[in-house]
Formats: sequence, structure tokens, C-alpha cells
Amino acid sequence: MRIAIGQINAHVGAIETNVSTMLRMLDEARDVGCDLVAFPELAVCGYSPMDLLWRDGFVEACFDAVERVRLASEGLVVAVGGLGIERRHRPANRDNVSSLSDGALIDLYNRIYVFEDAKPFATVDKQHLPSYDVYCEERYFTPGEGTSVLDVGGRTLGINVCEDLWIDDGPTDVQASLGAEWILNLSASPFYVGKPAIRHRLASRRTKENGIGLIYVNLVGGQDEVVFDGGSFAVDARGRCIFQAPYFREGLFIVDLDGARPVKPRTIPDIEDVRDALVLGIRDYVHKNGFQQVVLGLSGGIDSALVATLAADALGPENVRCVYLPSEYSSQDSLQDARAVADGLGASWAVIDIAEAHDALREALPVRPNGLVDENLQPRIRGTLLMALANQHHALVLCPGNKSEIAMGYNTLYGDTVGAFAPIADLYKTDVYRLAELYATVIPDSVRTKPPSAELRPEQRDDQDLPPYGALDPLLHQAIEGNASLEDLMRVDADVASEIVHRVRLSEYKRRQLPPGIKITPKAFGFGRRMPLTNGYTG
Amino acid sequence: MRIAIGQINAHVGAIETNVSTMLRMLDEARDVGCDLVAFPELAVCGYSPMDLLWRDGFVEACFDAVERVRLASEGLVVAVGGLGIERRHRPANRDNVSSLSDGALIDLYNRIYVFEDAKPFATVDKQHLPSYDVYCEERYFTPGEGTSVLDVGGRTLGINVCEDLWIDDGPTDVQASLGAEWILNLSASPFYVGKPAIRHRLASRRTKENGIGLIYVNLVGGQDEVVFDGGSFAVDARGRCIFQAPYFREGLFIVDLDGARPVKPRTIPDIEDVRDALVLGIRDYVHKNGFQQVVLGLSGGIDSALVATLAADALGPENVRCVYLPSEYSSQDSLQDARAVADGLGASWAVIDIAEAHDALREALPVRPNGLVDENLQPRIRGTLLMALANQHHALVLCPGNKSEIAMGYNTLYGDTVGAFAPIADLYKTDVYRLAELYATVIPDSVRTKPPSAELRPEQRDDQDLPPYGALDPLLHQAIEGNASLEDLMRVDADVASEIVHRVRLSEYKRRQLPPGIKITPKAFGFGRRMPLTNGYTG
Repeated sequence: MRIAIGQINAHVGAIETNVSTMLRMLDEARDVGCDLVAFPELAVCGYSPMDLLWRDGFVEACFDAVERVRLASEGLVVAVGGLGIERRHRPANRDNVSSLSDGALIDLYNRIYVFEDAKPFATVDKQHLPSYDVYCEERYFTPGEGTSVLDVGGRTLGINVCEDLWIDDGPTDVQASLGAEWILNLSASPFYVGKPAIRHRLASRRTKENGIGLIYVNLVGGQDEVVFDGGSFAVDARGRCIFQAPYFREGLFIVDLDGARPVKPRTIPDIEDVRDALVLGIRDYVHKNGFQQVVLGLSGGIDSALVATLAADALGPENVRCVYLPSEYSSQDSLQDARAVADGLGASWAVIDIAEAHDALREALPVRPNGLVDENLQPRIRGTLLMALANQHHALVLCPGNKSEIAMGYNTLYGDTVGAFAPIADLYKTDVYRLAELYATVIPDSVRTKPPSAELRPEQRDDQDLPPYGALDPLLHQAIEGNASLEDLMRVDADVASEIVHRVRLSEYKRRQLPPGIKITPKAFGFGRRMPLTNGYTG
Repeated sequence: MRIAIGQINAHVGAIETNVSTMLRMLDEARDVGCDLVAFPELAVCGYSPMDLLWRDGFVEACFDAVERVRLASEGLVVAVGGLGIERRHRPANRDNVSSLSDGALIDLYNRIYVFEDAKPFATVDKQHLPSYDVYCEERYFTPGEGTSVLDVGGRTLGINVCEDLWIDDGPTDVQASLGAEWILNLSASPFYVGKPAIRHRLASRRTKENGIGLIYVNLVGGQDEVVFDGGSFAVDARGRCIFQAPYFREGLFIVDLDGARPVKPRTIPDIEDVRDALVLGIRDYVHKNGFQQVVLGLSGGIDSALVATLAADALGPENVRCVYLPSEYSSQDSLQDARAVADGLGASWAVIDIAEAHDALREALPVRPNGLVDENLQPRIRGTLLMALANQHHALVLCPGNKSEIAMGYNTLYGDTVGAFAPIADLYKTDVYRLAELYATVIPDSVRTKPPSAELRPEQRDDQDLPPYGALDPLLHQAIEGNASLEDLMRVDADVASEIVHRVRLSEYKRRQLPPGIKITPKAFGFGRRMPLTNGYTG
């Protein structure tokens, strides 16, 4: 049996584009003699359309799209992720009033359509709807039922959807017990560090415990805060990987189940996956939103140098506008370092001195600002100028904030937090250094080794305002990824624990107004971490 | 039977404070000879603690709090909302790994504890967990089971939680069929316009269809984007309201079920409820976050005048700092109007001319800005100066944006969107005028009648950049509250429909970075409306 995996980069809401890509892939699959073509979960509309799912027109457009895929499936069996509705038979979710069923309430399903030779063959609804981290599928969907074991091309196939594979004693095991030889799992599974290996371990376990094979089909592409990494694969009934599609790349990939032989396990260092995720995340955010160019302020420090480098990788250096915006506190070294980065990339370079604007704002205030108030004026002037440049050049501003400073509120809201997108917002400072090593040829040694400074007052250094990153980052990791309490953290490092918990809590209001970042850890700030702003809990 | 309703203003996370309030109320209830004291859903921790629910220390603190309530319940029956856990018997929600059960997975419940004379009497778990609009309870909780019909003080009482009352053929009906004479519903139900009447209609229907009485206990107070309006009440088995607690006010309110007589239905104009919600929302956001003062820019227009007036109502005029920040395009009329508002309120007043700062920023840019780029510089300078003033005076900046302009993206990100809180973000412009009428004594006629203008270029008026608000607002209402598609809107007003749909879609990125507003409609921007930023759907 020959299977084509349509690992598409679906654009949320761009249903026409997604269908066109799939129709092209169907032609290609027919040309190379495939029996079955499989597209990911919600392939017609992308993941996740969020509250668009409550718009009748959107749901109807998804139906039309699925119908076009059906009509194009002559001579093939095709499985494709779309939406399903049924008249509601349960109590009302009051947001879900729809005219699709003449004013009655409906149930919406995360549904796979299976077509055979342009005829309806089966539908499969997702049964386990994730509602943790970035997921809120119970907000929209009703859990599916049934067993979904089908005969396709002489094989017995169990089809299930994303989360359904992850559930112990779940749909996969039921399908195996009903005689499925192969499981076809259609997913929209976003990346975080280590996720590719986690999926492979799961696949190995599920196949061995049930004596079945698995074809795992994943989405690829950046969608706001998440990046789907693709990396579709197949595992045989002995838990051996027999096919591995590329990561972070769209394509139609062919698997021959008959006579397949084990392939070598993937051995990519985690940090390279991070780079690839960030590059794809930037490219898709910028291009899918109709832009080509980005603007960012280079400070001479490592964060903005890394963001510029990633952007050049994603968009081409000709689309990266680097601006150096010195104040009276900026050093000559910073100018040289910033310039070296822009030149090394081949990106454009401009210098805008903010000293006069800084003075004008100081003068405007009835009481002359000092301390933090005066410090904050500088990044806010920079933010204003970067936005003006972005408007002038139809470009997006990239925000260079990293996870350590965002966690601690070591930034100026409406200042260095300004931007359409914050590519490294989920990298701790120590990860920023690790990733910058991959770019050692363009990011100069001086940038990668000098002590970090915001240069907002004379002789300022980060370690005057923050615990050293080597001590800070492991505790932040426990607090954020591990949900550790103050008591837990005190046991690790009593000196910094209470400062961390205090500052993380008091800076929630800043994070609420931050641009979206790219998730690369199990718990990123943003949509997957929802904290009250008004919060009296100090533990 | 004498029941005390503890309509508390719970502060999310401030568990000690919440418990102290409840203990004081228990003493008071004992003093006046009550049989039963009822506190709202999640009264110990406030609603909603969101991802704090995944912190072990937080869950433990809630257990301790409930235990303190138990110990203080001598001589009483007390029902109080807290958290429950059970060892997990279902497949894993992977975020919910907890050390509370020695590393095993647990189920968390939205639980009511019932104590009698300081002894455990019963627990009741919420069965229907809302996951629409601002709610995401399925993210945290497992649905409860059971019937929860108890004998309390010689009466048969069915206890259920918030959403459980709203479900047709749900827990209330089951409890009635099992002999409950009264239903005690403990809620955390946020306000929107018309919600008080909707609750009363529901209560009347549920009681009459089951021949039972209902005691409805609601939370009060502002929590970020939502305001709980209190207004607890009791309805007899004939659907007649026999008790009505005040709205928007904390207190212990006593209901004597025996010999109760119908009370007159409430007849408060909707717009007065809106005012009360906004005033409480501002006060609680500012005070619960440890502030007393606010700063805002008065433009001479109606939006900022209304926000200043609401803030003065909430915090006292002595805590409202009004700042007028004219540019070269500001008119003499605007100055007079702004000044009249500040003086009328008795708030402080300052003028900061931004013309020189504007020139300095213009000069700084390599290419002299014009058009929208030059317009945007002005609100961004104002935002920067307002933030500096707020830092200098330990105050919060209030953002004056209304729902019409926020919907259309008719604002400058990091400019007039700057602020800790946006009190009128859920009021359409036409509602702004309606609410301002209630304050006709302090908001001058000229402010309430002149054509709106942002004054960012010569002779600018809103109606040059936007459809007239009278045409715009009804369509926005259909698009946002009604989830109407472009096709639906075209049928109402083809001229403005496509402009509206286009601009609402393209301004999602601005809304993602806005300060929280106060929800007063069934669908506010913010947490209850989740749209992808990258979105190719244009329908």
C-alpha cells in the first residue's frame, strides 16, 4: 500500500489557498500511483481558527472546501480534516447560536472526512478535545464517538485525530482491539523543544503495545504563537520508524508500507530545531500577514542581534531594516557591535540619535524625570520611532524581548516591548546565548560575550537589576514550566526565589500587552498561560 | 428558616482577606439568628484564579481557607465555594501534573463545602463547566456528579453551582424530582447589560416548572475584565421574587423564607447598571492592585471626559489627575472643554504641550513623516508622557478607548491605547453619549454635542475616517455580539459592511495588545473573544 502524506502549511482562514494546495497534492499523488492521501487535522481551515468557528459563513466555507476535495479525489482514497455539524442534542452552549440549523443550536465537530473515488466513504470525529495550554477545543467542539475502523485498499485502518493517540486505553487501543492493522492519526501538533522525540516515543509505545503500525500526519507552518513542525512519520508494528518526513517544510511525502525498512533515528540537536522553528515562525507570521519587511532596533546587545539574524534567515537580509537609536548613555562599543551585525547580515542600517527627543520629553514634563522614569523615556522614544519607520516602509516591527526579562518585567511597556511579533519571547537568556552560537559567523564574539546592559543610565549592567542569568533562568524555568510555588523555589535558592515570585507576579500586566511570541517550550507566555492581573496570591 | 447570603467581594488570590470577610459575616449571621449562611462559588479564592489553579500551593491555601471557615461555623450550617481534588481516574490532562497526589495526576473540582456546626456535612461539585465567552472551566475542572439533595434545618435543599441552574433538564430539575423544596444556587455570574433581568426570568421559569423555591447567591466585585454584580435574590415556588439583595455592593443579606412576601420587581434603567458596573470595575481594579490614583489625558472630547468622570465617581476626584496634552492641531475649544471637565469634577489639572517633542521626533526620523505617520507620533508622545506621570505619582493610566474605535482600529497602538485599564472599551460610541447624559451636570453640553475629532491634523473629524456612528454601531453590534458574516451585514448596509469587516479583521493585532476593559455586553473584546491574528478569512 502506497500512502501520500500531505504535510501542508495551512494558512488559518485562507481556505481557498489551503484547498488549492491540497488539490495540487492530489494530482501529484495520483501521478505517482498512491492508494491513500492523508491531510492533517483541520487542514481546510488551518489550526486554530478560534472564534471564527462561531461564524456561520466560516463553517459553510469549510464545508464547501471539503466538497471540493471530495470532487478532486477520483481514483484515490483521501482523508482530510474539516468541520462537522449536527443538530444539538445536549444542553446549550450559549455562544453557539447558529443560523446553520435555522436558529436552533448545533454541535460542532473536529471531523475527518474520508472519500473514495470522489464518493463519501466515512467520517471520523475527534474524541478527546484538549483544553490545556494553548488548546481550547472544548470551547468549540463536541467530543466525537464511534470506533472508525475502515477497510481501505485491502488493509484494516483505524483513523483518529491528534489527542486521540495520546490517551492511554483510548481510541487507538479500541481500534486495535477491533482488528485495525494500521492507525492513521491526523494531527495539528505544535512544536516545543523535545516534542519530535516525545511523539516518536509515544508512537513506539502505542504500536508495540497493540501490535499495530502507525502513520502519523502532522501540519506544518507558523500560526501566531505556535509553529507546527511537520515531521510526519510511520512506525511499524514492532515500534520501528519506517518513514520520516522532513521537519518545518511543506510537501507531499510518499510512504510504501509494503517492504518498508527501518530508517535511522533522527539526531538533530535541540537548538537546531529551535532555530528552524523560529525562522519558520517569523517567515509565516510576516508573509501570511501580507508583509515582506521587518524593522528592528539593534542595541549592540545579543537579543536584538539574534532577532535580526533569525529575521534575515527567514526573510532575506534585504528585508531586514536595522536601526541603531543611541541615547546619551549608549557606548561606542554598542555602535560598533550593532553595525557589525547589520553589515555581517547584509541588512540595511540606519542611525537615529534620540538624545534631542529625549531632552524634549524631559523638558515637557512638569517635574524633571529621574531614575526609572527617565530610563523609561528612552525605550518609549525608540518604540515610537520604530513604529514610524515601520509605517513609512510597510514593515513590521520585531520585538527583541527574551523570556527571562519578560518574566521579570525587566522591560519598558510601550518601549522595548513594541512590535508586531516577538520571535525570542520564549527563549531564556541562557538559551539566547546557546542559539547565538549557531550564528557565530555573523554575530561577533564581542556581542556574544560582553555583560548585558540596557544602557539607560551610566554604567548600567543587567546584573545590577537582576540576579545573574545563570541563577535566574533555572528558577524561572521551575516557576513557569513547572508551576513551582515560592516554597519549592526557596528550597533551591532562597536568595532569589522571593524576588522572582514577586516580580513575575507584578509584571503580569506587562505581559498582557506584549506582542505574540513563538512558543518553543512546554509553557510559553501568551495564550497558553493565563494569569489574572488582579491577584493577591503571593505564594 | 432564616438564611444569610454572604454576597462577598472576593479578591482573586487574596485568600486571607476573603476568609476574614467570611468569618466576620459568620459572626454577624450568628448574632441575628440565621440557620444557614451561603457564600458564592469559589468564594475563598475569587473568580477566576485561572492558571493559579495549577499551582499546588494555591490549591493547598484554598483547602486551608475552607478549613478555617469550617472551624468558624459553630452553631450554623455554612455553604462555601472552594476547590476539591480527587485522584485522577481519567486520561491525563498533561498540564495538570501535581505533587499534591505524590506526582500522580489529579482531578480538580469546582466544589461547594457544606458544614454543620463545624463538622463536614456534604460536598457538591459543579456539573456543567462553561467553556464559552470568558469562561474556560473545562481547562481546569472535572465535571461533578451526584444529586446533592440535603436536609437542612428541616427543609429539603438541592444545592448546585452557577451554570448548573442554566441547563434545561439539568441538576435543578433532577433535584426537584428527588424532593428538593428549595434550590440553593451558588454563583459567580458576571454582569452584562440585561443580565439581572435574564437571571430573574430564568429563576421564575425554573421555580414554576418544578414547583420549588430558589435562593440565588452571587459574587460581587470587579476582577480585571469582568464585574460581578451581586444582586443575590430569592424566588418562591410560584416564581415570585421574595427577596432582592443590592447590586454592585458587598454585604450580608438576610432572607426569611417563612412568611416571605413578594417584592416589587427592579426597574433600574440599563444605563444606570452600566454606570454602576464601570464605577465598581474601576475602583476594584485600582484598589485591588494597590493603587489609589489614576492619570488620564483629557482631549476635550467625550470619551476621556466620561472616563475621568467615572474615575472620579470610583476613586474620588482627588485621585484623578487630568492632563491636557495639546499639539499644534489642538483647538482652543478643546482646551476649554477639557478644563471644564476637570474643574467640574474637582480633579487635578495640568497642561503639557507636546509640540516641541513632536518636532524633535519629526526631526529625528531620516525621512520627514507625513500623513498617518505624523498623526501617530502625537498620541505616542502623549502615551509616553502619561506613563512618565503615572510612574512619578504611583498612579495607573486609564485608557479612554471606546468599542467603536477599538473595533475599527481607529486608534494608535502605544498611543491612545496606552494604559493599565480601559474602562469604556466595551461601550460603543453611541452608548458613550447615553452614559454621558447621566453625568450632564459635570460633562458640559459642548463636550456632549460637538462632532468627534482626534485633532491629529488640521480640521480632522471622525466622520472623515469612519462611517457615521449611527450607521456604524448597529453593524458593529451585529458583527461582534452577533457573529454576523459579511454577507449578513451586506443585507443591512452594503456601503459600510465591507469596510467594517475589513477593518475589524485587520485591527485584531492592536486589540491583542490593548489593556483590559470592562465587559458590559455579551461579547466584549479581550479574553472572551479570541481571534487569530494571522487570518485569511475575509467573509
